[in-house]
Formats: sequence, structure tokens, C-alpha cells
Amino acid sequence: MIEYSKAVEIILNSTKTLGLEKVFLDRALGRVLAEDIHADRDNPPADNSGMDGFAVRYEDIKGASEENPAVLEIIAESKAGGELVKVRPKTAAYIYTGGLIPEGADTVVQKELTKVEDNKVFIFQELPKGSNIRPQGGDYRKEDLLIKKGKKLRPAEIGILSSVNKPTVYVYQKPRVAILTTGDEILDVGEPVEKLSQIRTSNTYSLYSQVLEAGGEPVVIGFAKDNPEDIQKKLEYAKSCDILLTTGGVSVGEYDLVKDFVVKVLGVEILFWKVKQKPGKPVAFGVWGREKEKLFFGIPGNPVAAMVVFENMVKPAIRKMSGEEKVFNPVINAKLKGGYKRKKGERVEFIRVSLSLTDDGFVAQPFGKQGSNILTGMVYAHGFGIVDVGVTEIKDGETIKVSVFDKSFMDGRYGD
Amino acid sequence: MIEYSKAVEIILNSTKTLGLEKVFLDRALGRVLAEDIHADRDNPPADNSGMDGFAVRYEDIKGASEENPAVLEIIAESKAGGELVKVRPKTAAYIYTGGLIPEGADTVVQKELTKVEDNKVFIFQELPKGSNIRPQGGDYRKEDLLIKKGKKLRPAEIGILSSVNKPTVYVYQKPRVAILTTGDEILDVGEPVEKLSQIRTSNTYSLYSQVLEAGGEPVVIGFAKDNPEDIQKKLEYAKSCDILLTTGGVSVGEYDLVKDFVVKVLGVEILFWKVKQKPGKPVAFGVWGREKEKLFFGIPGNPVAAMVVFENMVKPAIRKMSGEEKVFNPVINAKLKGGYKRKKGERVEFIRVSLSLTDDGFVAQPFGKQGSNILTGMVYAHGFGIVDVGVTEIKDGETIKVSVFDKSFMDGRYGD
Repeated sequence: MIEYSKAVEIILNSTKTLGLEKVFLDRALGRVLAEDIHADRDNPPADNSGMDGFAVRYEDIKGASEENPAVLEIIAESKAGGELVKVRPKTAAYIYTGGLIPEGADTVVQKELTKVEDNKVFIFQELPKGSNIRPQGGDYRKEDLLIKKGKKLRPAEIGILSSVNKPTVYVYQKPRVAILTTGDEILDVGEPVEKLSQIRTSNTYSLYSQVLEAGGEPVVIGFAKDNPEDIQKKLEYAKSCDILLTTGGVSVGEYDLVKDFVVKVLGVEILFWKVKQKPGKPVAFGVWGREKEKLFFGIPGNPVAAMVVFENMVKPAIRKMSGEEKVFNPVINAKLKGGYKRKKGERVEFIRVSLSLTDDGFVAQPFGKQGSNILTGMVYAHGFGIVDVGVTEIKDGETIKVSVFDKSFMDGRYGD
Repeated sequence: MIEYSKAVEIILNSTKTLGLEKVFLDRALGRVLAEDIHADRDNPPADNSGMDGFAVRYEDIKGASEENPAVLEIIAESKAGGELVKVRPKTAAYIYTGGLIPEGADTVVQKELTKVEDNKVFIFQELPKGSNIRPQGGDYRKEDLLIKKGKKLRPAEIGILSSVNKPTVYVYQKPRVAILTTGDEILDVGEPVEKLSQIRTSNTYSLYSQVLEAGGEPVVIGFAKDNPEDIQKKLEYAKSCDILLTTGGVSVGEYDLVKDFVVKVLGVEILFWKVKQKPGKPVAFGVWGREKEKLFFGIPGNPVAAMVVFENMVKPAIRKMSGEEKVFNPVINAKLKGGYKRKKGERVEFIRVSLSLTDDGFVAQPFGKQGSNILTGMVYAHGFGIVDVGVTEIKDGETIKVSVFDKSFMDGRYGD
């Protein structure tokens, strides 16, 4: 039995970032960039107009006023995507936002400050030279570093990738995560109940969804009965995956064959079994594969314990494999409403709380039933309040650290 | 030109939640539940053991002690998923976590408090009647309401759905969101640059990604040149969608045909054009379709303005169509580092800030370049600081409201 912090350290030290793959931009959102992105040309590529109006020579509008306007002949037009035109002394060009600054022009006068009559523009005001011009390279220069390797791609970065003509981009591969559910009593969804003792799975598909959320590729390799042949057969299906999660089968009962079989079938080297935490004590962790680059997590069958173990231990490993730097859920300080007491302080305890963000900061509200088998108590939870080793009471209004697995409590309601 | 808050009100009042569809659980994550979910049977379905140990009659262990243990014959075994067995007076059954409580037994003694010899179990301690039994229906009863309609589905809820034998579930449909990019100067990714005035799109694919993030289905209907035939043809492609986004083509230039054409081709009724906000002033909004159930947003071509308009106006509409209750990004209070000044206070202004969460609360750091055409300035941004109408200065360390579009700044780093 090891300390929680030691367990997390062992897991992350055993986890290696995967190789690279090229993906199209429509699949790149949320992936971690594995190459530096440089500008393919200046942006803007040439001087252009920030306004609709007239491109002129500053010399020609110098001293212009209401009483004594500059009067220039309109001889050309420059629109976004158009050709490069020219202006000569005493002439002007119509120009539209994004239009190239004509050869000879150095200033743009916005439409609002002008009047047009008989193909002549009247300009009633002098503007500083260079007004309303977006200069070539004003945003960035060709070869500039725009996005650094390691950045998790969001919409802004996808936009930049397309603007520098990268329809495909190198990102880190996603781990394939095999999910094996064990136990004679477990039914898959859709299977008929034949005995009172049978339980329909929740872990298989909550883990499936957690793997998706964490950025992995879930692979449900199925359900194994508590017999050697079935476990062995199903474990073979895990060989093509990067991580194996088993759920059930790691407590002390004599029917718990899984841990022995992952050693035998996959060559798993167990690095720890049992962690000083509540819930989730009977968790096993190991490494396997030719270079011990693959991971095994034996997750308790208890639905809430399974969630805790996934969020705190499996998710950081998936994120590290996927190239992410920030692998842990946020840990915030919140005021604990109603307080929390327990008898023993030997293990770190994770208690389900709902969260709200008030003018006074974060507020955490624990649930009545904290039994680890009561998954329905998760429905209104946003995080796990952390009751540290040695702590047996946190009083009403005192601060509790909360590991947040659902940040949506912060979102705004229509009408707020 | 209307106020920002009025614009948002008009949009949400014009937005109707879509119809329902059934999806399998592997596609249900993040969708909004459109039916109440009730328990299909008691959970646990029958009294079962919370421990590995022995199922006994309380009568038989009453008064047991170190010196005077109860000695019971082991006559049966109850494991998870097994058959219902029986105990008689002075006998016990092996029981494993999840095993049914045998007929006649009323208490489970954990293994650690016992010793086995010659098929007899020695019990050295009296336990209260009912110890270590998880009672039938202790989590919930058949027909109990487990998840209410309107809940956004997370891994815990997916787990519950499978445990009540719902492989498919009713959720609200996702809106199909057509994206049309306009402007003679805009090139798609991959197209060769032929003129200095051509610009490669960023908005098409940043909007694509924002639609995905918001929970919509992006449909890139393409690029329209600034001529009537091309705009008309491309707009026809939008007819099967619920929302049309156009980007570019809503400023005052004479080449801005889009707004006229959405009226002509799709029958859009424009409800507002131009909003008192910076960036993003030239935004148009309207409704169309047989029952005016479809939406049109004319989004400025400016990449940063496009992001602002999407996050504040389009995303809430997509979320409302998808059945979500919380449609807005979180708005938090943060300390503004370095302060912010502007000349005029006529429009609400959204300034790009990076965020951090410190022991002292949220801290917002604005960027040097706030020019609305500088998309690269978005790379380190997490939110838009809101400078309200009438406000021209927020001093260093003062509070600023921030609308957060990327909550990942809160996540934890390995080694923190």
C-alpha cells in the first residue's frame, strides 16, 4: 500500500509520449501540435487599406479643410483581391477595405470625410501621412514563429494553420485504450437479466466516455467472466492497444484472477497494488510491451472509485501520452459548505462536491451519501474535494482543495 | 446600430430548440438529454455483501470474543453473479464482495476477523446485525428518477444510462451550421497565390472549429467571389442547414452583396445590422425558413472580430438549439494586470487576455497588440476582458469581467 502522491509519480514516470501523425485541420481540434509553425509569407502580404475610402498622395491633401478642400480626379479603383493600380499627382483611387495601396499613394482617406461629384473627390481634412494603411508584415513576417510545438490546438490556432497554408499538421498520436470489464455478475447493456445477482455494467461506458474526454481512443474489448479461459482470450485483444484498463477483479476475493493473468498473458510488470486513498484503494498499476511503454491499470469495480481512479491516475497518463503538458484536472480552493467530518485520517479521501462560482469565490457543496458504490450521487458533482491524510474535519466555510472534472458549472445561463 | 445586450437578447429570442433524435451511448457524450431517465430495477437488485468474508446469522455470533469464538460450519459459497444459497443455524457461507446474502443469513463478517480450519470458520468478535450488507434498493428503487431531462451528458450519466439498460437515448439534435466565406481576395487552403492582394482564409476553419466546440455540425459550403452568380449559387447550399454564417461582406463597401443576397435567395429577415461593440461592429443577424426558425449571422471578415462575434453571439444560439440551458461562456472577475486605457467609451470593448488562477483569485493579462486583424495575438488568449460602455480606464490591479472561451488555463501541470 503506497501513498497517493507516490502512486501518481510512478504512473507519470512510467508514461512516454507517443509518436507523431499528420491530420487534416478538421480533425486537429484539441490535438497537441508536434511541429513549430512558421509564417509562409508576410501578413498582410502587402500594404493595404483598413477602410473604405480614397487612396491619395499625402502631398495632395496637405492643408485641406472644410473651406479649402483638396479636389482630386478619381482614376482607378482598388478592391480586396484586385490588381495593383496607380495614382499620379492630383488624382485618387477608390479603395475598399483590404484593397492594395496603389503605386504612388501613401495615405487613405475614409469615405466619411469625403464627397464625390463628377468623378472628382472632395477631401475636407488633412490626415497624417500613412493614415488607414495596414502595412505589409504588420501582423507578422515570413518565417516568424507563429505557434510553438506543444500547443494544444484551439479554433484560433486552426485558423492560423489554414492561413499559413497547412491543410495537414503533425500532432501527437492518441493512445488506444482497451477497456475490459470483469466479473461473473456483470451484464452488458441489452443482455437479459437471468439471475437476481446480476448487475448491469456502468463502468464500461463511463470509462469509455472518460477516455474520449481525456483525448484517448477507447476500445471496448468486452466482458470477461471470472474464469481463466475467458480472461486469457479477452486479454489477447488488448495487445494492439497502448493502455489496458480492467475494471473489477482487483480486490482480495479468490475469484480475482485478472491481476495474475495480465502478468501471464501480457507480461505486465506490476509497479504498485493498493493506494492509501478512499475510494479507490484496490488499484493496480503496471507496465508492459517490448520497452515497457504500455500501461496497465486495474481499476476497482466500484463505479465511483473507478471514476476517481480514472480522473486522478488514468487521465494524466492519457494526456501525457498525447503530448499534453497540463495533464491534471484543475485544483481550486473552495469554501466548503456544511463542513465534512470523518473518523480516520489515514488515507487521502476524495469527496464528491457540486461547485458554484460566487462573487466570494468558489463554493463546494458535498453530497449526503458519499458511499463509493452510489454512482447516482455523481449526477450533480463537478469535482472531488480533497481531504488530505491527517485531516479528519473541515469546518463549514473553511477552504477545501477541489479537483475539478467538470468545469461547466462556470458557464452562464440565459437571463443571468 | 444597437446595444450589445439588446443584440444578444434579439438573437436568443429568435432561437428555438431543435427536435429530438435517438443516439447510441458512444455518441451521447456532451449531448443534452431529452427524456427523463428512471431506474429499471432496484439497485442493488438484492441484498449483497460489501466485503469478502462469511455470511452468518447474527444469533450465532452474539457474544463471540477472542477467548470464546463462534465456530460455524462452512456449508456454502456466495459469489458475485452466483446463485442464492442458504445457511442454517450454526453454519456460515463463504461470501465475496457483491455476492447475494444467503437465505437465513443477516450479517457478513469480514475475512480479516476470522480464521478457517477444517471447513470451520472461527469468528472472534460480535458484529452488529446487518453488518457489511448492502441492502436491496440502497442506492435507488425501481422507477426512481435518476437523471432529469435537460442534463448535459457526462461520463457519470453515460454510466448510469448503461446501468439502467438504455443503449440508446433521446437527445436534442445538433444544429447544422453552414459556413460561407466571401470576398474576391480569399483563397482556400492549398490554392496557389496568384496576386499579391490575395489572402488565405483563417475564418473558414476557425469558425469550423468553433462550431464543433459549441456542439454544432459545421458544413463548409465554400468560398464565394464578390459577384451575384457565385454568391447566389453558394447560398443555395445553405438551405438544408439550421444556421448560416457568412464571413466577410458585411462592411460598407459597394462589393458587399452578401446581405442583399441572403434576403433575396433565402428570404432572410434582417433583425439588426451593426452593434455597439469593438471589435465586431459590422455584424448582421436575421431569421429565415418557413417558420423563421433558421438563423443568419453576417460575421465581419476580421479574424479577431469573427472570434468575438462567434463566442458572444453564435455559440449561445447553437447551444440553445442543442437544448442546453447554460448557453454563455463563463464570466469571471479577474484582477487586470497592467491596466487598460482607451479614448472613447461609446462601445463595449472585448480585449484579449491570458488568464491564470492564483491563490489571490483570477488574474487577467491583456496583450500588447489589440488590433482586431491580428489573429496571432489569440494564441495565448483564454478570454475576452469586457470594457463596458462608459468606461475608458481600468487601472492596474482593478477588477475586470472576463468572458472565458478557454478554461484549460486552470489545468494542472505535471510537477506542480
